[in-house]
Amino acid sequence: MEEALRHLEAHREAYLDQLFAYLRIPSVSAQSDHDKDTRAAAAFLRDRMREIGLEADLYEGDGLPTVHGRYAAGDDRPTLLVYGHYDVQPPEPLDLWETPPFEPTVVDGEIRARGCADDKGPSLALLLAAECWIRATGSLPVNLKVAYEGEEESGGSVIERYLEEHREALHADALIVADTPGLAPGTPALCYALRGLVALEATVEGPSRDLHSGSYGGAVANPAAALARMITSLHAPDGRVAVDGFYEGIPPLDDAERARLARLPFDEAAFLSDTGARDLRGEEGYTTWERRTARPTCEINGIFGGYAGEGTKTIVPARAGCKITCRLVPGQDPAAVQEALARHLAAHCPPGVGLDIARGPVAPAAFMDPETPWAQKARAALERAFGAPPALTREGGSIPVVNAFRTILGLEALLLGTYAPGEKAHSPNERYPVEDFYAAIRTGIFLFAGERPSRR
Amino acid sequence: MEEALRHLEAHREAYLDQLFAYLRIPSVSAQSDHDKDTRAAAAFLRDRMREIGLEADLYEGDGLPTVHGRYAAGDDRPTLLVYGHYDVQPPEPLDLWETPPFEPTVVDGEIRARGCADDKGPSLALLLAAECWIRATGSLPVNLKVAYEGEEESGGSVIERYLEEHREALHADALIVADTPGLAPGTPALCYALRGLVALEATVEGPSRDLHSGSYGGAVANPAAALARMITSLHAPDGRVAVDGFYEGIPPLDDAERARLARLPFDEAAFLSDTGARDLRGEEGYTTWERRTARPTCEINGIFGGYAGEGTKTIVPARAGCKITCRLVPGQDPAAVQEALARHLAAHCPPGVGLDIARGPVAPAAFMDPETPWAQKARAALERAFGAPPALTREGGSIPVVNAFRTILGLEALLLGTYAPGEKAHSPNERYPVEDFYAAIRTGIFLFAGERPSRR
Repeated sequence: MEEALRHLEAHREAYLDQLFAYLRIPSVSAQSDHDKDTRAAAAFLRDRMREIGLEADLYEGDGLPTVHGRYAAGDDRPTLLVYGHYDVQPPEPLDLWETPPFEPTVVDGEIRARGCADDKGPSLALLLAAECWIRATGSLPVNLKVAYEGEEESGGSVIERYLEEHREALHADALIVADTPGLAPGTPALCYALRGLVALEATVEGPSRDLHSGSYGGAVANPAAALARMITSLHAPDGRVAVDGFYEGIPPLDDAERARLARLPFDEAAFLSDTGARDLRGEEGYTTWERRTARPTCEINGIFGGYAGEGTKTIVPARAGCKITCRLVPGQDPAAVQEALARHLAAHCPPGVGLDIARGPVAPAAFMDPETPWAQKARAALERAFGAPPALTREGGSIPVVNAFRTILGLEALLLGTYAPGEKAHSPNERYPVEDFYAAIRTGIFLFAGERPSRR
Repeated sequence: MEEALRHLEAHREAYLDQLFAYLRIPSVSAQSDHDKDTRAAAAFLRDRMREIGLEADLYEGDGLPTVHGRYAAGDDRPTLLVYGHYDVQPPEPLDLWETPPFEPTVVDGEIRARGCADDKGPSLALLLAAECWIRATGSLPVNLKVAYEGEEESGGSVIERYLEEHREALHADALIVADTPGLAPGTPALCYALRGLVALEATVEGPSRDLHSGSYGGAVANPAAALARMITSLHAPDGRVAVDGFYEGIPPLDDAERARLARLPFDEAAFLSDTGARDLRGEEGYTTWERRTARPTCEINGIFGGYAGEGTKTIVPARAGCKITCRLVPGQDPAAVQEALARHLAAHCPPGVGLDIARGPVAPAAFMDPETPWAQKARAALERAFGAPPALTREGGSIPVVNAFRTILGLEALLLGTYAPGEKAHSPNERYPVEDFYAAIRTGIFLFAGERPSRR
């Protein structure tokens, strides 16, 4: 392992150059006129994997390819599956970039380029960790399987088909994903929970056409008012979701968990200034971190109905609707929550109007026990690489591919947060500290070392 | 008077031809490429007035002209001011017309053409009544002042400027407006009340941008949910408007009034089939006619905020808003109601969001006592002309020009309903019974006869 680390030290410049070459490829998957570039990024990755010593190829599907690679260390060695993505967010709005998005530039020790943190830097770092082992010692101590997709930012499904078609071949002891942020500059993170999702759209049907409010107003039910009443019924005054059965199955947040979340830094002034929110509001009895990551929510994403243009239009609208998404936490059954929500809305639909419910996608929450042997090994690798123990964090959002790995391969992800947060992953001037790049390579070197961990 | 009536009988065909010529002019004021046509209709009217024996001219302003005419019968004679409009609604959608909109056709005793009922037929009829008098007897027994505008369907203000500039010259005993429907085929109406209006738009301000519902959901106030809560607070479960002071100043509906409205026919099945409403809903303790015309309302005309497109967007919207209009009844002070509504919304705005209120137009309700001497004379004229006593009706909407006549000239309108209702005034296949046209002329002949009425 020392040799691998020394190899890294001797190749700092060369590896940074490699990342820069990768970052210069504008692999914007959401923009089809960049398809050639995105495929160039896939080819770059495949070629790099082959140079490193992996068998590598492109898996083609209905969209952009998944680059897959494999290194066989022997049946007695542990097997790691590594996920990443080579596509990046669109760089727009371009005029807000201080340096060109596809011309990586180091400013104050930070690389600036689209995709540097999300996810080219961290995902390339894990391949370079393998290279350090192989170049320095002649071999990698683990069986390595790599699947880097090109549609993470555009919502494609090629990676899922790849997983489905290679169920057996992708058997592994652990799944490594380096696509979430660390806690703070210098402090990495292991994210151990993601929230799930339930989406639903409700449309309240009133008269068969918009009615003149002078001739008909006051004599028929107004669907916009009916909708408002239904939306109001969704929350109790204390901020709890008032839907029967909504909280079913959720274990109480235990003291250890609450203590863990309480240790995460929270700067209220910065939060309010960033969001523009007037103050902190949410379910009573919980902290903001808990509300954002460990408690389920029910949010109105949009409302619509009747006249929304300039001035006044004196109508009783024919219909009104809203889009609702709930964020779920481990223990909740997404299908059951969706049904409970639909039932609640139907029960609270005022008389005189009809109700149409359209069920949207659902995804379960994920809990990835941070105390498993592999999680502990990952935490130790992060700690050695960064010189600071990783924070244990929860994310409030969902990562669909994590669910795909669980349902298709039965693997829970180890979400390594190796880059400083707040580097505007989807915004102009995306940045990535150069030292985080090297620390991420070291994390890989430590993670690939040694034996299969076992429960202590 | 008998001579005037005989003159009409002798010129039935010629007068119908005149109306047809008038209807062939596509005077669509809302469509500026029809301005030439609309001005042609104004010239047609002016020329007709002159042929009849009125001094007539066009009053030009910032828009389409008001055609004004005058006949002097002598200072000892009563003076009537007649309002009408020569512009028509756009004929679109054209493919729904069974006969061409600007080629008047008689089908089953009904004229079909855009503008035949609204308002070319009834307003031309009153001019022809004057012609019958003058041709048959050599003179008209009343001083007549006529102001027919060309922007009723497009919301122009030339007529108002005309009224303001001719305050003195337009002094009259009574104001005749034949632009509202009768009660039923064969039954005319005198409309004695119009509802007023208060418009307001409320915008709830949340975060400074749409926030990701995964990262922020549950931790900040959702403006769409806050808006729903405010809208819900506007009505009590019994359908009453729950705004403090909203009903202030409204006299209770007395028994005579309620009896009058109870006599109006109401076909619930037809109403529901026409509107597509599931059932009748409104303020408890009132009939549908009362709710539609004699009680104030508060309606949501539109709601908006966040994502309304296809599929799901997981955001907490930055803002959400709604448009509200209230219909007012006599006794309510529009400005006070607008303030009460704004105050109510501010008081019911949940914590954590901001509120922006934009005040829209206001207009008072109108009550035109159907028992004044002139109203009784108008009722008698309608009864003689149609062979049936007019129904006394209230309208749920507003007619802005009626307020202009009241505020500028101090004149309350006599709203003569001389055409059968349900002839789709603003819809394709607008129709007007031929016999209603002659009855409207007779109404004018009776109305112009005799002395200034006095309270009996």
